[in-house]
Amino acid sequence: MRLTGTFLDEISFDIPHHNWGVEEWDKDFQAMKALGIKRVIMIRCANKNFMTYNSDVVRHYSKDYVMHTPPIDLVDMFLTLAEKYDMEYYFGTWHFHQSSCRTWNDPEIFRKEGDINIDIISEVQERYGHRKAFKGWYLTHEICANNAGTIDLFIRQGEHAKKISGGKPTLISPYFAGVKANGGKLTNGYRPLTVEEHTEQWEMIFRQLSGVLDYCAFQDGHVNFQELAAYHKATRILADKYGVETWSNIESFDRDMPWLFPPIKWEKFLWKLESAEAAGIKDGITFEFSHFMSPHSMYPSAHGLYDRYCEHFGIPARSKDFK
Amino acid sequence: MRLTGTFLDEISFDIPHHNWGVEEWDKDFQAMKALGIKRVIMIRCANKNFMTYNSDVVRHYSKDYVMHTPPIDLVDMFLTLAEKYDMEYYFGTWHFHQSSCRTWNDPEIFRKEGDINIDIISEVQERYGHRKAFKGWYLTHEICANNAGTIDLFIRQGEHAKKISGGKPTLISPYFAGVKANGGKLTNGYRPLTVEEHTEQWEMIFRQLSGVLDYCAFQDGHVNFQELAAYHKATRILADKYGVETWSNIESFDRDMPWLFPPIKWEKFLWKLESAEAAGIKDGITFEFSHFMSPHSMYPSAHGLYDRYCEHFGIPARSKDFK
Amino acid sequence: MRLTGTFLDEISFDIPHHNWGVEEWDKDFQAMKALGIKRVIMIRCANKNFMTYNSDVVRHYSKDYVMHTPPIDLVDMFLTLAEKYDMEYYFGTWHFHQSSCRTWNDPEIFRKEGDINIDIISEVQERYGHRKAFKGWYLTHEICANNAGTIDLFIRQGEHAKKISGGKPTLISPYFAGVKANGGKLTNGYRPLTVEEHTEQWEMIFRQLSGVLDYCAFQDGHVNFQELAAYHKATRILADKYGVETWSNIESFDRDMPWLFPPIKWEKFLWKLESAEAAGIKDGITFEFSHFMSPHSMYPSAHGLYDRYCEHFGIPARSKDFK
Repeated sequence: MRLTGTFLDEISFDIPHHNWGVEEWDKDFQAMKALGIKRVIMIRCANKNFMTYNSDVVRHYSKDYVMHTPPIDLVDMFLTLAEKYDMEYYFGTWHFHQSSCRTWNDPEIFRKEGDINIDIISEVQERYGHRKAFKGWYLTHEICANNAGTIDLFIRQGEHAKKISGGKPTLISPYFAGVKANGGKLTNGYRPLTVEEHTEQWEMIFRQLSGVLDYCAFQDGHVNFQELAAYHKATRILADKYGVETWSNIESFDRDMPWLFPPIKWEKFLWKLESAEAAGIKDGITFEFSHFMSPHSMYPSAHGLYDRYCEHFGIPARSKDFK
Repeated sequence: MRLTGTFLDEISFDIPHHNWGVEEWDKDFQAMKALGIKRVIMIRCANKNFMTYNSDVVRHYSKDYVMHTPPIDLVDMFLTLAEKYDMEYYFGTWHFHQSSCRTWNDPEIFRKEGDINIDIISEVQERYGHRKAFKGWYLTHEICANNAGTIDLFIRQGEHAKKISGGKPTLISPYFAGVKANGGKLTNGYRPLTVEEHTEQWEMIFRQLSGVLDYCAFQDGHVNFQELAAYHKATRILADKYGVETWSNIESFDRDMPWLFPPIKWEKFLWKLESAEAAGIKDGITFEFSHFMSPHSMYPSAHGLYDRYCEHFGIPARSKDFK
Repeated sequence: MRLTGTFLDEISFDIPHHNWGVEEWDKDFQAMKALGIKRVIMIRCANKNFMTYNSDVVRHYSKDYVMHTPPIDLVDMFLTLAEKYDMEYYFGTWHFHQSSCRTWNDPEIFRKEGDINIDIISEVQERYGHRKAFKGWYLTHEICANNAGTIDLFIRQGEHAKKISGGKPTLISPYFAGVKANGGKLTNGYRPLTVEEHTEQWEMIFRQLSGVLDYCAFQDGHVNFQELAAYHKATRILADKYGVETWSNIESFDRDMPWLFPPIKWEKFLWKLESAEAAGIKDGITFEFSHFMSPHSMYPSAHGLYDRYCEHFGIPARSKDFK
């Protein structure tokens, strides 16, 4: 059980920016590579006024926000770096409606999200689909259960993406509806799902997404540490049944601290690695390397996490090599 | 449109301290200079128990707080560094009453603030007025509209400061009453002002401050990005009419993140530069260089902002030159 | 009045982890030593799922949490480093019940806390009591007043610890029930204690702990700066009367900033040093060196605090010596 991938969160909504240019990103890809990262997943293509690439589709649909022309085409930059360092790149779609999906119960909103993203996917396939590192599609909507319209949203995006890209794989990264979800509060009708309830919800989802969804990497930070292996295992068994490969999204930020978010304590990260392994999961991705595990992170405790991870797995790289 | 000035926020109420001594401040002035900063504005002279200089006036008026004798005279230190690096220094007055000016409607409080600051200005003129770098007066009260007593507060301070200092210029840095003001909340009777309402309020203010106020640098972070140019332009046209020169206070911290405050994303900063330029504004100051743009900042993403800014404007300096 | 000790907060609940290994901790002990630290106090031995050493007692009592086997025995590591750098080590007990002691009024809970910690103390004495650097016992419960059961809790732990360890000294670090306690809010029945009320409460506590408690280091951050000397002095006089030596826990983090917690402003730290000295206190410990005063801290403003402290006391060390 190793980390083999990381999200790239450059168009962010709650993670402060590093303000890196191409040179700094290049150095960070070097540090990723040395730790064993072989795939990078761009978490979304736009947010509020900002876009990763100069998208006509985003401009067309955006109503509340005037879009800024990006000073750098981040899709191109990440593809170029992925090619340079022999990594796979996944493109993340657009979460258009600003309200949280946690309270979505309106299939009309999901339908609209699907419509928009079908156009995004077409535009991206045309502009970047031929690139060597372009490996697959990250369907960006973060869900926890089978709300009305959810399955249809993923089917429409997944079928379209596969059809026009020669069958490139699709990935989602949902979250467990655990005690730390919904900000850890029992408000707006939120109630954690037991492992059994979770299994029931996801049986419906995986069954219908069979053949459309290739990889599912649950975020591992919303349940208590000691519950994690059970949630992972139930999910992995279910996903196997419907031909979906289970990864773990081993969050490298700490959800238990008074500010959002510092890098996680290594022993917590280790616990989560061990839980995924115990559940029979073989691949880990993380949200996300550059802020929370990188020798170049603005949070120096990330440098320590890099070192502890490498030390644990006998990887020779150390954060000080990148200074 | 370039950054030519920065606030100095060493007696702070919401920005953590760097704990720099004279040597570290000297290095930071070098980094400012290399980026093009030519004026420094000390945001206030005292707060709660702490003073920038050993002021008899502050001690006299302070009732709720016993004042600590400053281990370093910061006014002298900043003047000395400004002289060394050929910069202009603005002295910031005292916001005595701790309650926010956002809810001030009591002219008696404004009158008292004026009385105190007239004495502060006299003391400072006597002690530091002769210093070569002492360029002008920053009237520290941050306002957004024409509340009762506001105009009188600035007229009294401005007239007195000019009279005893040989006419040295005055500066204010108000904020737009936008969607992100009042903590982004519609509480305590707060309601954003439209561009038209803003214009109406400031027509009254600028008309009466004509001849007393020289520079007005609005904080640029309280309105949506796409609204900024319109607010700036309306303000600039109005200020021109009454002989007040408009600068922009291009905030270098990010108001959209879950903790207060990290350095801003470069693309947001760029947007705000472009908006000021589109409004016909030629000079920018920032709150503030040392925490949010400096190669020496405690927030490493500030180093990136320094580099992106310099890169954009073809300035040869880079943050790594100062390590 | 100098800093001679620091807490070690490696099993933390609200301070983000540095993710240091043995090598990084060794370097930090070097920096402590250079500043004058001669004692280290491990603040607690376990929290939630994590333990500082592989404790059978913790596993036995822990019900809500499954405990993780620590990748490093931190008690052994800290003892080894304390021995290497000729320092004293204090072992901190376990705060089992997760609810805050601020609202504890249930003597049954205190009784249970006592029972558990008597077993912890026995286990630790057996495993580590022979170690050269093992100097004493830190009784971890943070209290502010004489709630029902409080005195009994400390008597039982203190008597047991002394009896089985050949009379090794005991330390507590309470907090003043001041305006910044209880999150600065008058909720859950909280009301600050005046100096007189504080004295009355602690007269009862010190009188009964006489002979069982050796050192008492009040946290110095919950009262206004100008009130601190009076609280300290009343406490010191009282403690002297009952044979308890008073230290000050000079907090090196800032309680007045919008995020919890950055390193404190040097002038505030200086104020608190001066207040303790004015109260006749000779020894200071801090919570805590590694995050808030260290050249290796993840918060670079801690580096400045190290430098200002050393500069003030004529200590030749500087943070840059440790880079």
